[in-house]
Amino acid sequence: MKAEDIEAFFKTLQDNICRAIEEEDGTGIFKEDVWEHHSGGGGRTRLIQNGSVIEKGGVNFSSVRGEVHPRLRAQMNLNDTDDFQFRATGVSLVMHPFNPHVPIVHMNVRYFELSNGTCWFGGGIDLTPHYVDEEDAKLFHKHLKTACDIHHSEFYPNFKTWADEYFYIPHRNETRGIGGIFFDYLKPDETGNGQNLSKNQLFEFVKEIGESFAPVYTSFMKRHRNETYTEEQKQWQYLRRGRYVEFNLVWDRGTKFGLETNGRTESILMSLPPQANWEYNFEPKENSPEAETLAWLRKGVEWIS
Amino acid sequence: MKAEDIEAFFKTLQDNICRAIEEEDGTGIFKEDVWEHHSGGGGRTRLIQNGSVIEKGGVNFSSVRGEVHPRLRAQMNLNDTDDFQFRATGVSLVMHPFNPHVPIVHMNVRYFELSNGTCWFGGGIDLTPHYVDEEDAKLFHKHLKTACDIHHSEFYPNFKTWADEYFYIPHRNETRGIGGIFFDYLKPDETGNGQNLSKNQLFEFVKEIGESFAPVYTSFMKRHRNETYTEEQKQWQYLRRGRYVEFNLVWDRGTKFGLETNGRTESILMSLPPQANWEYNFEPKENSPEAETLAWLRKGVEWIS
Repeated sequence: MKAEDIEAFFKTLQDNICRAIEEEDGTGIFKEDVWEHHSGGGGRTRLIQNGSVIEKGGVNFSSVRGEVHPRLRAQMNLNDTDDFQFRATGVSLVMHPFNPHVPIVHMNVRYFELSNGTCWFGGGIDLTPHYVDEEDAKLFHKHLKTACDIHHSEFYPNFKTWADEYFYIPHRNETRGIGGIFFDYLKPDETGNGQNLSKNQLFEFVKEIGESFAPVYTSFMKRHRNETYTEEQKQWQYLRRGRYVEFNLVWDRGTKFGLETNGRTESILMSLPPQANWEYNFEPKENSPEAETLAWLRKGVEWIS
Repeated sequence: MKAEDIEAFFKTLQDNICRAIEEEDGTGIFKEDVWEHHSGGGGRTRLIQNGSVIEKGGVNFSSVRGEVHPRLRAQMNLNDTDDFQFRATGVSLVMHPFNPHVPIVHMNVRYFELSNGTCWFGGGIDLTPHYVDEEDAKLFHKHLKTACDIHHSEFYPNFKTWADEYFYIPHRNETRGIGGIFFDYLKPDETGNGQNLSKNQLFEFVKEIGESFAPVYTSFMKRHRNETYTEEQKQWQYLRRGRYVEFNLVWDRGTKFGLETNGRTESILMSLPPQANWEYNFEPKENSPEAETLAWLRKGVEWIS
C-alpha cells in the first residue's frame, strides 16, 4: 500500500467524521478552507462554529511534503548531508462544545514517510471532560481498548500509559483530561512500538482508531447535549479551557513543532477554544464537582477493571 | 552595593507601583500572596482584579536562590561540576485593563548573581495597545528614550531594537505591540550590552526604568479610562489578548523557563488575561481601526523622529 492510499483513507475519514458531527449537532455546518504548504502539498481545514452542540471545532486533513527540518533531522538521527524528503499526512481534530457537560475531545491519526524508505504511523485520542463523568470515562476507555485489542493485546495498555504521559501538564501537575491512547513511531516489521505488525496491519489499526472516533464522541454529544448548566459551571468550563490552551501552547509537541517550522498557523491553532479564562489561584470548594474532577486528573487511573 | 540593596529597592518599587496603580484606578486594591520557592527565597505576588480601570493585573516581587539549573548552565557556558549558586531578584508586572482603549502593559526589572561573582541586570517595558494610538506610542517611546539617554546614548537605540526582536510572534508575523525596550546581561565593567558602565551606574539605569513605569502608564489609564467603546471593540480586545497568550506561552523565554523549572505557576501565569478569545482566520475590514492597528505591529517602526 502506497502513501496515496493512506491519504485517500484520511480524506474519506475527514468526510465521514464531519458528516457524523454535523448529523449529531443538527445545525452546525463545517466550512472548508483549502490551503497549500510552503514546502509542498497542503490541506483541507474544516471548521464548525456556533452549532447546537459544538461551539467551535475543527477537523483538519493535511498532506505535506518537503525537506526534513533540521530539528527533526537531529531528533531522528539522520545525517546532515543527505537530502531527505518527507511526506506527512493525517487527520487532526478538536471539538469545544457549548455545554460544559459535553467533553472536549481530540483525535489525530498520521502517517510519515521518508525518502530513505522509513515510514511510521502515529496518533491518539484523548477526552477532556470539564466535569469528569465516570460512566463516560469507562465507556471511552473500553471503546478504545476494544479497538486496540483487535490488533494487538499490548496496544491498549502501552498506548494508554503513553497518553497519560503525553497529555500531562507538568506546571499544573494535572493530566489534560481522562487520557485515552497515544502512539507514535509505529514502524512495520520491527520490534518496538509496532509489535512486529506489518505496514498493512498497522494501517488497519490506525483505520480502526480513526473510525472509532465518531460513534463514541457523538454518543457523548447525544447523552449530554440537553443537560442544564449554571453560569458558574460555564465559568468553570472557561477555566478548564485555559488549561487546554496551556497544554497546547506550552507542551504539545505537534503544536510547538508546527509553529516553530512555519506551518499554517490558523490550522494549527484551530485546537484553541473560542474563549478561555484565567483566574488567579482559583481553587474549587472542597467536595464540589469541580474538586472531584481535579482529583481525577492524574496519571495511572485504571478506568477498566 | 550588595544584592540586599537591590532587593530592597525592588520591594519599594513594587510598593510604589501598586500605590500608583491603585490611586489612578480608584477602586481596585492589590491583594498579596507571600510564597516560598522550593530552592530558597520566595516572593510577594500582588494581584488587582475588577478595579475601575484594571480588569486583572499583577505586580510580582521575587527573590529566589538555588543551584543553577542545568539548562541555564549550558546557556551560560558554566562547567558541569562546580556547584554554582544563583540569586535572582526582580519585579515583573502585567496590566490588563477593561477598556480596549487603555493599552496592556508589561514591565520587568531584574538582577542576577552567581556564586562565582558574575552578576548582571536585565529588564524591559513594552506596550500592547488593542488599538494603536500614535500619540501614546510616541509619548511612550520618548519617555523611555529620555530615561535611557540619562545613562547612555546607545541604550535607547540598542534596547528598542532588542524589544522589537524579543516581543515578536513569529507564527503571526506580528510584534506583540508597539514595543519599548528590552535589555539583558548588563554586566558591570565589561564591553558589551552594559557600555562599560559600573555596577552602580547600571543599577541607577535600572532604577530609572523601574521608576519611569508608573507615571507613563497611569497617564494612559487617565487619558483613556472614560472613552466609550462598543461590544465589537471589546471582542477585538479579546482576540488581541489571545495573541498575548500565544506570545507568553509559546515564545516568552521567562515564562517558558519558569514553567519548565518548576517555578510558582500562579505567579508566572499572572501575566495571562482574565479572558481571551480565538476566532478562526479573523481578518479585520480594510481600513478599519483594527486593520490600522495590525499594520503598526511590525519591527523597526521609529516612533521618535
